[in-house]
Amino acid sequence: MKKLVNDPREVVTETVRGFALAHAGAVVLQEDPVHLRRADAPVAGKVAIVSGGGSGHEPLHAGFIGYGMLDAAVPGPVFTSPTPDPIVDATKAVDGGAGVLHIVKNYTGDVLNFETAAELAEAEGIRVVSVLVDDDVAVQDSLYTAGRRGVAGTVVVEKLAGAAAQRGDDLDAVADVARRAIASTRSMGLALAPCTVPHAGEPSFTLGDDEVELGIGIHGEPGRERIPMAPADVLVEQVIEPVLADLDAPRGSRVLLFVNGMGGTPLSELYIVFRRAAEILSDQGLELSRSLVGNHVTSLEMQGFSITVTVLDDDTTALWDAPVETPALRWGR
Amino acid sequence: MKKLVNDPREVVTETVRGFALAHAGAVVLQEDPVHLRRADAPVAGKVAIVSGGGSGHEPLHAGFIGYGMLDAAVPGPVFTSPTPDPIVDATKAVDGGAGVLHIVKNYTGDVLNFETAAELAEAEGIRVVSVLVDDDVAVQDSLYTAGRRGVAGTVVVEKLAGAAAQRGDDLDAVADVARRAIASTRSMGLALAPCTVPHAGEPSFTLGDDEVELGIGIHGEPGRERIPMAPADVLVEQVIEPVLADLDAPRGSRVLLFVNGMGGTPLSELYIVFRRAAEILSDQGLELSRSLVGNHVTSLEMQGFSITVTVLDDDTTALWDAPVETPALRWGR
Repeated sequence: MKKLVNDPREVVTETVRGFALAHAGAVVLQEDPVHLRRADAPVAGKVAIVSGGGSGHEPLHAGFIGYGMLDAAVPGPVFTSPTPDPIVDATKAVDGGAGVLHIVKNYTGDVLNFETAAELAEAEGIRVVSVLVDDDVAVQDSLYTAGRRGVAGTVVVEKLAGAAAQRGDDLDAVADVARRAIASTRSMGLALAPCTVPHAGEPSFTLGDDEVELGIGIHGEPGRERIPMAPADVLVEQVIEPVLADLDAPRGSRVLLFVNGMGGTPLSELYIVFRRAAEILSDQGLELSRSLVGNHVTSLEMQGFSITVTVLDDDTTALWDAPVETPALRWGR
Repeated sequence: MKKLVNDPREVVTETVRGFALAHAGAVVLQEDPVHLRRADAPVAGKVAIVSGGGSGHEPLHAGFIGYGMLDAAVPGPVFTSPTPDPIVDATKAVDGGAGVLHIVKNYTGDVLNFETAAELAEAEGIRVVSVLVDDDVAVQDSLYTAGRRGVAGTVVVEKLAGAAAQRGDDLDAVADVARRAIASTRSMGLALAPCTVPHAGEPSFTLGDDEVELGIGIHGEPGRERIPMAPADVLVEQVIEPVLADLDAPRGSRVLLFVNGMGGTPLSELYIVFRRAAEILSDQGLELSRSLVGNHVTSLEMQGFSITVTVLDDDTTALWDAPVETPALRWGR
């Protein structure tokens, strides 16, 4: 596995420096400990939103910093939670007096470190509310989690909560939007090929030429089962059916369909997946109302995809459509 | 090599169907022969811009259809030029009475088929001007080209010409912007690992664990030489130095730096590349004025990157900053 890295211990430092250079003017980098934030933060009177977690899922989270989405992101080492200190720094740096929402993916390390950070920030007089994203229907508990894992649906939660904060909702209302987004969102993924953590140097798992990992986690951790490699349409059915079964949306519901790439899968293949997933939604009487296709929550160069379905109502549709201006997601300002 | 495909002969058809579903309302698909176009085309009085070429480089070209960029894209089979017929169809469908610019990457098949299409369209009374993109400094002639190849710089040409057409420039003026963009743009790429064309089933070339292909083409065709695998910073130097030498921009020039992923390389690694490339620009007295980082002109799941540098002036800076609203590139409308 060849990688475009220098010292494997410096990959996060060098990535965030490149990111800050490429998006200078929009994003500010604090090093040691690392966090990134909106250049115009704090925005007085606006609820601020902070997310973070292990690196290796780019563009998540730093790519979603900007107008209408996150105020700050705290990247940990690859696939490893950041410590509380940079989370506290980020929280203090972006608080505009209206409090801070922490959006946390449900992994044990992230949960503990964000909890500690929230307590420390509150001790300094900042009001913090946290929400846990646990959209992955693949497994109930896993290698790194008690309860369901937070995966690609995190983008949807960050977009909807970010739009609510941007329109001026107060902290309780923004947290309520985030919780409703989480309650209406389900995801599952599948891997064709593994990824290699730079400092490990070996793939995180192995797969035969004739098998795929159904329900893969975004750190390469095991899913539901290994199943035989099959045509794309068959694989899409095996991923989306548990998602829709768990979501249990009434016929006629309007949904957002988000086909996410794991990092090493060509965009063309994601559109092939989207095509079949959209057909299945239609067959089940669901209305394809909004779409997102791309590599948004990745696992380094893993090959594979995940499907996220969110049930939308009038309010969340408006929040989805609201202007957003971030490195990785932008429209309509 | 596992792929998310059904029948390998149907990958383009299924990709464009997924694309049209995901971007319904913005893009219209004509099948048999395939082209995609802006849903609001033709725009009366606006110069229309059509590009195209072999598939496998997604999001190029269809991902750049929309306000401020392309009016239509004509995807051929994977790594194979489209025939003249769909190019003629696209040209006729988007002509708003002000003529049509064809932006053609310099590959023999594309050049011949776009030429024939331009003649056929002109025979029907549509004025067509063509420009050839040949930004790749790696090789003078290659497997598929006489003269330099057109690679990632095509995105820059499409953006600048698209913005000129959108602001109301006439056909000659839009063509002039495109030619100036081509004259100010140079690129070169590097591959860490090959890609596999779906109907071929085998990688297009092989590379040892300890070597990379310098000057790779976007179809996996050979570049300058195979060089030893090295830290990212060393590889960046070997790619950007020929680009800057050929561009020969005076110190103090303002430039756009575009780090493009070949499809299978994580975004984090592209930012590591960007970081070093930006340092080198600065060392050479060039001013980093605008940035683009991402997988925009890909070679299926190839791992690697290319660096494109464009010298900007006041006019092209304004055209770069002008609003764009396409599936793959959007800002500021």
